[in-house]
Amino acid sequence: MLTKKEKVVIVHGASVVRDEMAEKLGRKMQTITSPSGITSVFTNEKAIEVMLMVYAGLVNKQIVATLLAQGVKAVGLSGVDGKLWQARWKKDLYVKEGSKVKLLRNSLTGRVEKVNKELLMLLLKKSYTPVLCPPALSWENKIVNTDNDWAAAVVAGTLKIRKMVVLFEAPGFLREVSVETSLIPKIKREELSEFMQYAAGRMKKKVLGAKKALEMGVEEIYFGDGRIENPVTRALGGKGTVIK
Amino acid sequence: MLTKKEKVVIVHGASVVRDEMAEKLGRKMQTITSPSGITSVFTNEKAIEVMLMVYAGLVNKQIVATLLAQGVKAVGLSGVDGKLWQARWKKDLYVKEGSKVKLLRNSLTGRVEKVNKELLMLLLKKSYTPVLCPPALSWENKIVNTDNDWAAAVVAGTLKIRKMVVLFEAPGFLREVSVETSLIPKIKREELSEFMQYAAGRMKKKVLGAKKALEMGVEEIYFGDGRIENPVTRALGGKGTVIK
Repeated sequence: MLTKKEKVVIVHGASVVRDEMAEKLGRKMQTITSPSGITSVFTNEKAIEVMLMVYAGLVNKQIVATLLAQGVKAVGLSGVDGKLWQARWKKDLYVKEGSKVKLLRNSLTGRVEKVNKELLMLLLKKSYTPVLCPPALSWENKIVNTDNDWAAAVVAGTLKIRKMVVLFEAPGFLREVSVETSLIPKIKREELSEFMQYAAGRMKKKVLGAKKALEMGVEEIYFGDGRIENPVTRALGGKGTVIK
Repeated sequence: MLTKKEKVVIVHGASVVRDEMAEKLGRKMQTITSPSGITSVFTNEKAIEVMLMVYAGLVNKQIVATLLAQGVKAVGLSGVDGKLWQARWKKDLYVKEGSKVKLLRNSLTGRVEKVNKELLMLLLKKSYTPVLCPPALSWENKIVNTDNDWAAAVVAGTLKIRKMVVLFEAPGFLREVSVETSLIPKIKREELSEFMQYAAGRMKKKVLGAKKALEMGVEEIYFGDGRIENPVTRALGGKGTVIK
């Protein structure tokens, strides 16, 4: 999966396991929708605890152990560690409920603005593969949930990474959600905004993340199917959606 | 708490939170007793998941965030990351049940034998403070639970650390368990084995860890009260048990 010649940084999520665990703990996550139609979960103290457990604990270390067993020198870090992901805290959120817009206070979410490049380079120079995940740390040192796709874009831009592969549970960017044959094979970077109209649900965040990555200097973005064998190689081979 | 002149490595546990969370998840931990009377928890797949969540996720990142807020450049790592703690897997365990000794199979526990010195030095040289916790990784790349006190001793020995401070919920090493006035203020290093007779419950592991640390070249060990203000300074000031 990972060639030894190139420096690789992995950013992962864990929303399915998070929701399962939250439910088991009686802390079911509340889905919210922004006025622009982007869905996410409302994050309070209890939800941050579940995130820390599932993202930074369970899933991160399971990925790290799997990579180590394959000879990849993986080191797992959350956005909190060494202020790896510094975020602007968005305490108050506007959310759409039906036709109304409501203000939700005391949200523990934020948007990543700065990456600790020194810490990542320290590891990369010694051939370690950083395996990164939310949460992030706000400028006020609060642990905050953060959008992974945006964070990955800022990481890629900060490290001047050329290629970014984004894997999820679909063959790529679909013109019609759930219609797997409606795959968009290629998008020119300057036309990405026009494709936003086809992005449904979580895909909206992926497109926004891709836009941010392009802005930050990433040259090629590959959206691919994370459910298949050798997903990275196949995405890089153009089996999904290529943005460049 | 942490002076900026000295290099510091922190190793922490989280057994109280682990037990709470295990119970909430309906995965109550089973306490076992070794033939020599040392108690621990039986670790299977489900228990390892809880450990990953609580140690490497929740508690590790909360400690890291607290330190970062105080200006300490903390980075949290589990024993899995970068094969930081490599352990010999103890698959089969003998346990005492009443007057009988039973063999328990398929335990996911191990004893730390090697520390990734390169990774810790990489961080320490750039003034990061590593915050370490179980689990460890076995030589077969299995995630295994491990004794923290032993692991801390191997870390200290590997890094040629001179002083080790061990904090817990008592004023120090007590001659009579639960009798706080029975504190043993000083123990000569060559006499530590003789004091093993006073060690009850978890204190046995702390004494074994201290013995290992001395064997590995640590010069001074301070057992202190983790429940008070400035616990490290006070332990170093001789308020608990000093072993040297």
